[in-house]
Amino acid sequence: MTDRGGLDGAVVADISTSYIDGSIGKLIYNGYAIEDLAENTSFEEILFLLFNERLPSRAEYECLRETVAAKAAIPDAVIAMMKSLPADTPAMAVLRTAVSMLSAFDPDAENLSDKEAAKAKAFRLTGQITTICAAWMRIVDGQVPIVPRRDLSVAENFVYMMSGDAPDATACAALNVYLVLLAEHGMNASTFATRVVAATGSDLHSAIVAGISALKGPSHGGANSEAMRMFLEIGAVDNVAPWFEANIKTGKRRIMGIGHRVYKSNDPRAGILRRHAEALAESSGERKWLDVAVKLEETARADDYFVQRNLYPNVDYYSAIVLYMLGLDVDMFTPLFAMSRIAGWSAHVVAQMGGRLIRPKANYVGPHDREFVPMDER
Amino acid sequence: MTDRGGLDGAVVADISTSYIDGSIGKLIYNGYAIEDLAENTSFEEILFLLFNERLPSRAEYECLRETVAAKAAIPDAVIAMMKSLPADTPAMAVLRTAVSMLSAFDPDAENLSDKEAAKAKAFRLTGQITTICAAWMRIVDGQVPIVPRRDLSVAENFVYMMSGDAPDATACAALNVYLVLLAEHGMNASTFATRVVAATGSDLHSAIVAGISALKGPSHGGANSEAMRMFLEIGAVDNVAPWFEANIKTGKRRIMGIGHRVYKSNDPRAGILRRHAEALAESSGERKWLDVAVKLEETARADDYFVQRNLYPNVDYYSAIVLYMLGLDVDMFTPLFAMSRIAGWSAHVVAQMGGRLIRPKANYVGPHDREFVPMDER
Repeated sequence: MTDRGGLDGAVVADISTSYIDGSIGKLIYNGYAIEDLAENTSFEEILFLLFNERLPSRAEYECLRETVAAKAAIPDAVIAMMKSLPADTPAMAVLRTAVSMLSAFDPDAENLSDKEAAKAKAFRLTGQITTICAAWMRIVDGQVPIVPRRDLSVAENFVYMMSGDAPDATACAALNVYLVLLAEHGMNASTFATRVVAATGSDLHSAIVAGISALKGPSHGGANSEAMRMFLEIGAVDNVAPWFEANIKTGKRRIMGIGHRVYKSNDPRAGILRRHAEALAESSGERKWLDVAVKLEETARADDYFVQRNLYPNVDYYSAIVLYMLGLDVDMFTPLFAMSRIAGWSAHVVAQMGGRLIRPKANYVGPHDREFVPMDER
Repeated sequence: MTDRGGLDGAVVADISTSYIDGSIGKLIYNGYAIEDLAENTSFEEILFLLFNERLPSRAEYECLRETVAAKAAIPDAVIAMMKSLPADTPAMAVLRTAVSMLSAFDPDAENLSDKEAAKAKAFRLTGQITTICAAWMRIVDGQVPIVPRRDLSVAENFVYMMSGDAPDATACAALNVYLVLLAEHGMNASTFATRVVAATGSDLHSAIVAGISALKGPSHGGANSEAMRMFLEIGAVDNVAPWFEANIKTGKRRIMGIGHRVYKSNDPRAGILRRHAEALAESSGERKWLDVAVKLEETARADDYFVQRNLYPNVDYYSAIVLYMLGLDVDMFTPLFAMSRIAGWSAHVVAQMGGRLIRPKANYVGPHDREFVPMDER
């Protein structure tokens, strides 16, 4: 094989959604620095930006926010399906199934060629994924799912649907930043999966289901859960040094959430999420897991191995802390990633619509000209 | 972009499942000519071949056949979910959702690294997809789904579950040939989608769901339905010439199921399926649609446009006729394709397990260095 099977060198599309310069830790969405967007925009503005290549006016923002919120409820049949699943079903398997099932109730599901219809489906699905995630958390807890409110943003609605209480501002701000930061990231594996599906002329739901399927992998969206499981295993800030000595210095394990295939310098999203983890620690008075994460980062960055290889915390590392402090079970971390990435995925899907079938080559290394032998002579 | 976005030149994997020489119309599965396999093997032998790189002994065949049949039943919760869907839900959306849901009931669903566990899941899913397809046909017809029999092959079980009657031998033979011919075809778009998902370390069900999502596209697995819709639109053999004149000679439409991205000569599968369509016509006394298809092929192959461009009927063209004569609704054609291709998909998924993340590049063509403007100043 020419490229180790990862297609590392191949160019598959022209895009204008995002650009990453991994050597200097730079990420932009359609020209805007991620740092500016993270601190000043809502997730719905990013959704608008990715589809329209400009930020919305207040009226446009309010219109999109309400469109998403108004269609965020999910049919009773989907709730019934979720209730029929074993309570230990991985939340990503629940989300994958629920999103797939939603297509059966979407009036435009089989409109395969109209980009405006695809956008409308993407906006509905954005709200619906939020509702699925919150509903599953409540079903697992034996509680009745809460219906989304039309007057809230995606971040507010999710925090509201977790408990039914008025959403806490610090929590909503942290979740919104998380959603903004994770919304889009070039040609990652899940986004590429959505494009492979979209290029066959398949429908938006199918493409998003493929994205969820890819994001579920431990080498992709599963990494934030793995990072939190590692923090939980370490258990306390005083355990960081001996854990590092026993597991990392010996080469037995690697640190989940440190190092990135693209970023060979700081991942700009990690620092922003760390600041919001600080804010959540401040407001809740609980900083145990943040302290573990910070101490482990410091320990790693003081180690030659990590310095020489330019290994820094990536987005998964501090997003794990933020999501845990928001009260999410580790199993819900990757669904929350999907709740954000639906924005990037669907912008890529709409851009891919009508494009060429994506079909790389395989290199056949098996036998040729084998003579067929009937079963009883084998 | 360097490659028109289709990744046409890029090599993504070494494989030994199948090899295609499109210039001479040759297809082999692990060294065996498709012509030999089609006439002499059952679908289960192909499933064995793709995983083991050799054909099974009779004992191995019987063991695999029974393994598949014994696990082919689907949980009541999945049947209940299917019954809760609108009756006009596309069968591919039903299949995608049901396969996704099945993971919640599979004991090895989250075993992500063990290739033997993945094979066992693939064998279960092979039988279960057969049952889902037959069950959906009966649900749409307002009938009770039939439970699979442990003593039948995949082809026999499907024919049995359609009606509950003892399966007809000619029908089973035609369906078995269809399943053998469609089981594997190199690095097509849906197989590639399963590999993109598998490369993230995700589970087998996720990978297969992505394959179904890609196969659903009209440019991929949807083509056999499109071919049949075209035959139905033509309606009678006497209409072929005027339909060709009005739609094809004018350049307004293209013939669905003629031409292939890889085969620039005969698609060897088309001729085999045509012979089985003849056998079905013989046994049923109904040859109307076969006659339409044959006449349209002859009309096209007598036309310079098709001759000069080496456009021949592909597998979709005559498989449409075979499936229609088996009594399948057009909406079920692509699910039947999936029922066969699960063999190739899962062999590729198992081969991909543990491989490198598949992440090609995007070429950013959007703006840089945009200055952020607060919402009320936009």
